[in-house]
Amino acid sequence: MPHSPILLPLSEQHARLRAGSLSAVELVEAAMEQHARRGAHDHAYLTWNGDAALRVARATDAVLDSGGDTGPLMGVPVSIKDLYAVPGLPTYAGSPQRLPREWEAPGPMVSALLRQLPSVMGKTHTVEFAFGGLGTNAHWGTPRNPWDASHHRTPGGSSAGAGVSLVGGTASLALGSDTAGSVRVPASMTGVAGLKTTAGRWSTAQIVPLSPTLDTPGLLARSVDDLAFAFQALEPFLAPGHAGVPAVPDLADLTLGVPEAYFWEDCSPGIAEAVQMAIRRLEAAGARIVSLELPRTDEVFELFQQGGLAAIELAAFLNTELPEAIARLDPNVAARVSAADAIPGWEYVRRRGVIDSLSASAAARLAGVDAMLTPTVTITPPTLESLEPEGAYARANMQALRNTVVGNFMGLCALSLPVGKDAAGMPVGLQVLAGPDQDARLLSIGRAIEHELGNALACLGMPPSP
Amino acid sequence: MPHSPILLPLSEQHARLRAGSLSAVELVEAAMEQHARRGAHDHAYLTWNGDAALRVARATDAVLDSGGDTGPLMGVPVSIKDLYAVPGLPTYAGSPQRLPREWEAPGPMVSALLRQLPSVMGKTHTVEFAFGGLGTNAHWGTPRNPWDASHHRTPGGSSAGAGVSLVGGTASLALGSDTAGSVRVPASMTGVAGLKTTAGRWSTAQIVPLSPTLDTPGLLARSVDDLAFAFQALEPFLAPGHAGVPAVPDLADLTLGVPEAYFWEDCSPGIAEAVQMAIRRLEAAGARIVSLELPRTDEVFELFQQGGLAAIELAAFLNTELPEAIARLDPNVAARVSAADAIPGWEYVRRRGVIDSLSASAAARLAGVDAMLTPTVTITPPTLESLEPEGAYARANMQALRNTVVGNFMGLCALSLPVGKDAAGMPVGLQVLAGPDQDARLLSIGRAIEHELGNALACLGMPPSP
Repeated sequence: MPHSPILLPLSEQHARLRAGSLSAVELVEAAMEQHARRGAHDHAYLTWNGDAALRVARATDAVLDSGGDTGPLMGVPVSIKDLYAVPGLPTYAGSPQRLPREWEAPGPMVSALLRQLPSVMGKTHTVEFAFGGLGTNAHWGTPRNPWDASHHRTPGGSSAGAGVSLVGGTASLALGSDTAGSVRVPASMTGVAGLKTTAGRWSTAQIVPLSPTLDTPGLLARSVDDLAFAFQALEPFLAPGHAGVPAVPDLADLTLGVPEAYFWEDCSPGIAEAVQMAIRRLEAAGARIVSLELPRTDEVFELFQQGGLAAIELAAFLNTELPEAIARLDPNVAARVSAADAIPGWEYVRRRGVIDSLSASAAARLAGVDAMLTPTVTITPPTLESLEPEGAYARANMQALRNTVVGNFMGLCALSLPVGKDAAGMPVGLQVLAGPDQDARLLSIGRAIEHELGNALACLGMPPSP
Repeated sequence: MPHSPILLPLSEQHARLRAGSLSAVELVEAAMEQHARRGAHDHAYLTWNGDAALRVARATDAVLDSGGDTGPLMGVPVSIKDLYAVPGLPTYAGSPQRLPREWEAPGPMVSALLRQLPSVMGKTHTVEFAFGGLGTNAHWGTPRNPWDASHHRTPGGSSAGAGVSLVGGTASLALGSDTAGSVRVPASMTGVAGLKTTAGRWSTAQIVPLSPTLDTPGLLARSVDDLAFAFQALEPFLAPGHAGVPAVPDLADLTLGVPEAYFWEDCSPGIAEAVQMAIRRLEAAGARIVSLELPRTDEVFELFQQGGLAAIELAAFLNTELPEAIARLDPNVAARVSAADAIPGWEYVRRRGVIDSLSASAAARLAGVDAMLTPTVTITPPTLESLEPEGAYARANMQALRNTVVGNFMGLCALSLPVGKDAAGMPVGLQVLAGPDQDARLLSIGRAIEHELGNALACLGMPPSP
């Protein structure tokens, strides 16, 4: 694993694949080796696609040998969340039942990926219908957070297998989605980097919907550099006309807002400390750190605890498209879906109005800085057994998503990148928030931060062997 | 009244005002004379603004004398529905209570109008919060349909005073709004022309909302020619970049779809006949008439009877912005607002989805023709006493909006123009539907139809004297 080519930065894989010093087959074989070694332990995948990926990789290598180039993600081992329709692979969306075949026809995001001939290693576990932030799944089992070999800790969710696939060495890029934090929370909890795009920028078509208003496709990778590389490779197909990721700025030219309220409450030991340390290092490197509060954050959290939009929009989807799935829902999902029956339509409309007004205020607030820094997640990834007592899941789930959901309800784009470990030895993420449609600029700021603090996984060491 | 300059086509008013053979003061005085003569009978206005309009008209004439020109609507007598915020005039939105002062700051539509120095004759009655198609108002009284001197028949609504102001000779242009038919129904019932714009094309800001998803600003005037004139005058401020109203096409170059199902059901005596006669005349004049059905019309009507989006969105507005208004609602409005409490949020989301899918199908269906023709309203304007029995209002209200709401739920733009009288001697409207954002083209088609069939009010003779 330490020498696995799958750990190479995407830019390096890109160069070596084209120079002939690395092949797509070698990358897939490395992934397969890792899967054999720790796949059963990590439990990242619902559907493993190793053999098919190997066949595609041979063809990809033939194209490379002939001088062909199908795009920057050619030959890159990728995992895809079981929410995306992917040709030839079943979609369960974390439910016990395979969804109708229409959910295997690719949307814009998967098409933009597949045309570049990556190696699709499989489909990763998700919380059922993506409705949860810890990564648990009562039907299929919960992927294991690789950073604790002795306890089964949550990997974060809902893109529960995405971060695990990266840390476990079976993929160099993972497709996730984020409605309240489902990319950033697993990124933070597994010590990788994650990008939540601005809602509406990239199509969510053919991604099983949780909340069409707030759903966003997202990416997880080992580093912000890799995120930027993949973003650049996909964006032309998804949001044509946008300029690419700008050059990495000098930290001394950046003004970064840091809140005093809300985002630091009830942090598990070591989390606030790790994030504050990172911020101090950025300040020492020249960044201008200013105090900045986002508007009405307590109202956001209250609205979120009442089910936000997702409980209602998921209930609409299930009642309309998959009514038979409702009776079989994971109890932790079912509770919030059935609670939605009691929320009147006008309250949903009111909530949409609140979110529109929050988004307008937040955009104005963020216009005064280059980005904003907060902890991504305030709690240590909980052990599964700690979630068993009555009410424990609900509390931990809300707490896990507390800081990230602000970005969704305020229409922002956001990154998470790892900045250290907490007192339990688990990864700690720094959330970087930016105004709507600042995705490309956010990535360049994230790269500047990463270059100063040290690269992603590297700063955490290797995960313990299973 | 027969010689009132207020009855002149807008293009003629425009020319005479600039040639010095007509003044803004003369127009206002003609309106004031009519208001004195029949204002109490017609009951079109909640707030009459004659004296202030006269002062403005004097200033306008001074500008005209000095060679100034503030736009095509300069000096034109205009009535404005009591849903629009207008500086200096209270907004009640048909409720018994004056709305907060923020509802007197003009939005884009009123600003686009006022900058041209029209003569604002007053604010016309609306159904309370625009939630009804007959034009009744329990708080302020119901404007009287001018075409029946012996019975108090409904004027159509919710822009209840708009058509009456035109027929009564106090305005040459009326601002209305249309969420399920609230421009076209009063236009049809009072024998004038009405335009419902495509949702989203013109801003609804500072128009008290009924259903922000489907609300549209609209215009009523004596003829489609006048609608086109006013549209052309306002559009540059509201949807800049659109081409103007194209030249009137030759009927022989038009393909007009006519449905066989849905739109003809339960017509009062003489209505279907008048509309079919109009269609035959258009065919005889060379128009190609083809059979065309819109998709899932029965589902539209069922959804509408269940409150559609408006019941829910109005409940959201009232609960959020004007909670004290709920207890005082007109009983006919209150029934549907309180019923919305029982509609869950997910059902609202489902309905939004249905409307999106209907709109996509309808746009595709209409792409094959230039426009579609139906009766605007299938019933004779009912007498107020006929609405008194239990359930009678609800039934008549649904029936009145049955044909128009299809245009709203399917994302279309639409016109109504008068084509004759029914067996009760009341006006009959022809509805002309076109695909989304075809507003300008629709007006030119409407003009071609009007030129063939004869001009609007003229074909109905003059209304009986009060």
